[in-house]
Amino acid sequence: MKRLLDEATLPPLARGCGVLGTGGGGDPSVGLMMTLQAVGDFGPVPLIGLDELDDEALIMPCGSVGAPTVGIEKIDNGDEGGRLRDRLEAIWQRPVAALMSSEIGGSNGLMPVVWATRLRLPVVDADCIGRAFPELQQSTLELAGISPTPGVMTDERGNLVEFRTQDGFWLERLGRAATVVFGGSSASTEYTLTAGQARSAVVLDSVSLAIRIGTLITQAAEDPVATLIEALPAFKLIVGKVVDVERRTTQGFVRGSALVEGLGPDRQRVIRIEIQNENLVALEGARVLCSVPDLITVLDSETADAVPTERLRYGQRVTVIGFACAPAWRTVRGLDLAGPRPFGYDFDYRPVEELARARD
Amino acid sequence: MKRLLDEATLPPLARGCGVLGTGGGGDPSVGLMMTLQAVGDFGPVPLIGLDELDDEALIMPCGSVGAPTVGIEKIDNGDEGGRLRDRLEAIWQRPVAALMSSEIGGSNGLMPVVWATRLRLPVVDADCIGRAFPELQQSTLELAGISPTPGVMTDERGNLVEFRTQDGFWLERLGRAATVVFGGSSASTEYTLTAGQARSAVVLDSVSLAIRIGTLITQAAEDPVATLIEALPAFKLIVGKVVDVERRTTQGFVRGSALVEGLGPDRQRVIRIEIQNENLVALEGARVLCSVPDLITVLDSETADAVPTERLRYGQRVTVIGFACAPAWRTVRGLDLAGPRPFGYDFDYRPVEELARARD
Repeated sequence: MKRLLDEATLPPLARGCGVLGTGGGGDPSVGLMMTLQAVGDFGPVPLIGLDELDDEALIMPCGSVGAPTVGIEKIDNGDEGGRLRDRLEAIWQRPVAALMSSEIGGSNGLMPVVWATRLRLPVVDADCIGRAFPELQQSTLELAGISPTPGVMTDERGNLVEFRTQDGFWLERLGRAATVVFGGSSASTEYTLTAGQARSAVVLDSVSLAIRIGTLITQAAEDPVATLIEALPAFKLIVGKVVDVERRTTQGFVRGSALVEGLGPDRQRVIRIEIQNENLVALEGARVLCSVPDLITVLDSETADAVPTERLRYGQRVTVIGFACAPAWRTVRGLDLAGPRPFGYDFDYRPVEELARARD
Repeated sequence: MKRLLDEATLPPLARGCGVLGTGGGGDPSVGLMMTLQAVGDFGPVPLIGLDELDDEALIMPCGSVGAPTVGIEKIDNGDEGGRLRDRLEAIWQRPVAALMSSEIGGSNGLMPVVWATRLRLPVVDADCIGRAFPELQQSTLELAGISPTPGVMTDERGNLVEFRTQDGFWLERLGRAATVVFGGSSASTEYTLTAGQARSAVVLDSVSLAIRIGTLITQAAEDPVATLIEALPAFKLIVGKVVDVERRTTQGFVRGSALVEGLGPDRQRVIRIEIQNENLVALEGARVLCSVPDLITVLDSETADAVPTERLRYGQRVTVIGFACAPAWRTVRGLDLAGPRPFGYDFDYRPVEELARARD
């Protein structure tokens, strides 16, 4: 066991998941409340390394799917994870040995902890993206050739749907439709895999990373934003305030954009952030400052707390940062799955550090 | 075995299914082409009585789900039934002994034959409605308390979704959403049951009835419409021509209405038929002439062939008839599930024969 996920580690984990969520993955403050409640009721959860599991041990990647605007109002009842686990065990005819976040970003970095505590199972120190992405097939497990199905989704009423699809794209379409029927959010598991398969397929140590980020900004004596930028490291895209937010919840996603107008040295600058659950692209006029798969996070300029896309509002004082994604996303296949083009943008990906250099 | 479903019996079966389809259930002429092809390739299918099956024999009710406007363009590839059967057998850990139409109306009266021929399985002389209805939970098996789930849906690409829902209404919502993702139609099985359960839960002899109806109108020396009306028996609602059709394919259904203007003795009369896949209500001004769950069928005035809702068009010479539904639908629970009110109408059901008497 690496450490316990308990009342002490969960608040920094939530703050770190916010930063890695790039605006999406669900509001971690909601996830934190659920997790603290669950840990209070059922006890802390062991965070384990993949090396603590046998090659054949079955891992259940899991999280919530849906529009974060819905997730902050439609709260799970807590037994969704148990239903997913029971169904996977029936399908695989083997016990699930550990849970793992499908995505470390946002409240999805915490949901496996909520479920693991009731199931008395450990959580693996890894995830399947290294951030949050809006669609199910945008997973390093897709890049690694792990089968996405059978995937299972359930809701707080006990409805359960099992998918056997041609590929991850069909899982995304069918799963999204079921999520909309469920009322806009669902609990989901997909890309079931063994610990042996996981060793080369997941983003390692992402729970520890999130805790480290959260601890850093919590303990920073002054200017937590600067401390975070130096530690990640990240690039400051603008310091300013939110002057416009356009947001709609449609087809199971939050879509829209936000304008951030510069303050101080950034006066006269305006950047536009485009959103599909997560922050996808930061633009200054026609110039791309940062784009998927790299991470764009809107931080509260005072506290360095990440602002989820569904909490953006006029007048917030924010610092927008960009930082590098996990290396798997910078490959040709990674960009085909989660670069600017699959999100509908007509430009090629350039790494955030290269874009930053070009601006200097 | 009661008889063989073969090149001789299938054309009258298709015509009869059209009459019982009340405009829906899919165009039986498309179903007939698929069935003749399948029977030509794999041989005829035995039609059996329920009494030929052991109490424990597993029956797979099945059919297509979706908007008939889509069904006439998006044709199955033929192995959908095999995938449904394989999945049911894996779930139940027992062989499927026979197929049965989920609804006898429209091409859905033929789809089990298409699938049964490849699977070398018999088809039961019964169905689960006695007509066609638009929604999955509108089944006599729901009235009989048979569990709708696990239900299974698949498409022509091989995608497969399995549902474990709270009830038939959730199955309908989730199944409809999956059907829309599949492109507007899917192959489906739900309300799996044993022959023992079926004896008191299904509409018996409906395949034979459809063949009898089809044979009658095929062989009628003159005026097949009059022959049919006398035999069913049915009530003539109007003789006229279609003067307006409003139809849209939305959320997995065909919705709309058609106006039929009287000819000859019916001159000066106009009736309006309202549609959700099937013909739901026939109105003359504000007066109800016939409504669900009773059957409203638009017949070609020459041939007595039923006109599916998706084939209604300006200028067609038609005779609109109404006739009595299966008794199960006239109970309190039947009307709660498929009477005028669950379809959104604010009036109580009155049997078609009572409405006809009141007009005389």
